[in-house]
Amino acid sequence: MNVKIPKTTVSRLSIYLRALNRLEEEVETVSSRTLSEIVGFTAAQIRKDLAYFGQFGVPGRGYYITSLKEGIMRILGINKDWSVALVGAGHLGRALMAYKGFKQQHFIISAVFDNDPEKVGKNYLNHKIFSMDELPRLVGERKIKIGVVTVPSEEAQNAVNALVDAGVKAILSFAPATVSVPPQVKLNRVDLSIELEGLSYFLTQGKK
Amino acid sequence: MNVKIPKTTVSRLSIYLRALNRLEEEVETVSSRTLSEIVGFTAAQIRKDLAYFGQFGVPGRGYYITSLKEGIMRILGINKDWSVALVGAGHLGRALMAYKGFKQQHFIISAVFDNDPEKVGKNYLNHKIFSMDELPRLVGERKIKIGVVTVPSEEAQNAVNALVDAGVKAILSFAPATVSVPPQVKLNRVDLSIELEGLSYFLTQGKK
Repeated sequence: MNVKIPKTTVSRLSIYLRALNRLEEEVETVSSRTLSEIVGFTAAQIRKDLAYFGQFGVPGRGYYITSLKEGIMRILGINKDWSVALVGAGHLGRALMAYKGFKQQHFIISAVFDNDPEKVGKNYLNHKIFSMDELPRLVGERKIKIGVVTVPSEEAQNAVNALVDAGVKAILSFAPATVSVPPQVKLNRVDLSIELEGLSYFLTQGKK
Repeated sequence: MNVKIPKTTVSRLSIYLRALNRLEEEVETVSSRTLSEIVGFTAAQIRKDLAYFGQFGVPGRGYYITSLKEGIMRILGINKDWSVALVGAGHLGRALMAYKGFKQQHFIISAVFDNDPEKVGKNYLNHKIFSMDELPRLVGERKIKIGVVTVPSEEAQNAVNALVDAGVKAILSFAPATVSVPPQVKLNRVDLSIELEGLSYFLTQGKK
């Protein structure tokens, strides 16, 4: 896989995969046109995205769903389980522990950390809460590759630093704060306020 | 405001705003170069984004922080409060009720809905849970303009339909499902699995 795939294509692959999972129960093949109606991107966009990794529909039949699914899962690296560390056992952290979608997509929360002595040692939703001091050891022992950060803004950089120092190369942060990572580390952010501000912008400017 | 601003610029405005809030406590002006170091976008990108709405730095001084902040808040429509309906009082819904960032950004959760009779009428984190039957009335009475959907996938379309039927024009959905809205309604989605799949893709392909 040497082609550089745009980030937006990668997100769309996740969306196609979700649609294919549903279609697979009913049919064997799907046209880019049918997929287009389900996911809301144009058929041309879908064909372009899938051509990046050598998947071409069969004329008159479309794509074989099972093989397309396997291809996308291999590209996205979710044909195997990933060990995830969750840092922050507050409300949002607990919502993520309860979220069934992660496990379905092969993301397994292997260890949960918090720096609040009141929480350390307790069990939430079948997850034992560990102290931040144990993070370096457990990241190694449990082969943790991905970190998810759900701490308050002012602790976000410390949490990210702890993960980076322990060797984690991919981090998803929910903290509404700008944090920095070394160039070899990938940081994705989910900022709920930014999403809402996109909506208030739409409502204010009156356009989509 | 007749210029069409790209969606990515709108997200960046939110990020600039966060940085300006912090800077405002210390200094009066900021250069695009300093802002660049904080937010991680290039100074040229920042100047381009701000020029969209007529903000130009003063040579040798940079931007006046207070006026730039006010301009961005006005553009984003967060110079006033927005009433938000939350549909789904599960773990994620409760995490959002507890999230302080919303109120700081002028998003006020005015009513919480759930279709679980066990939850309706109870109080969570100072929010009374209402039945879905009461949604049309409360959306009108409480001037709710934004809906946030935190229900399971299979209920997402119903929740979105209820909001749209009640006249809500902007919706943020956390459900890992494809839902459709009429063209005049803006739907933003936060899909946690897509964010994680972006990370597993990075780790698998070994590039950023």
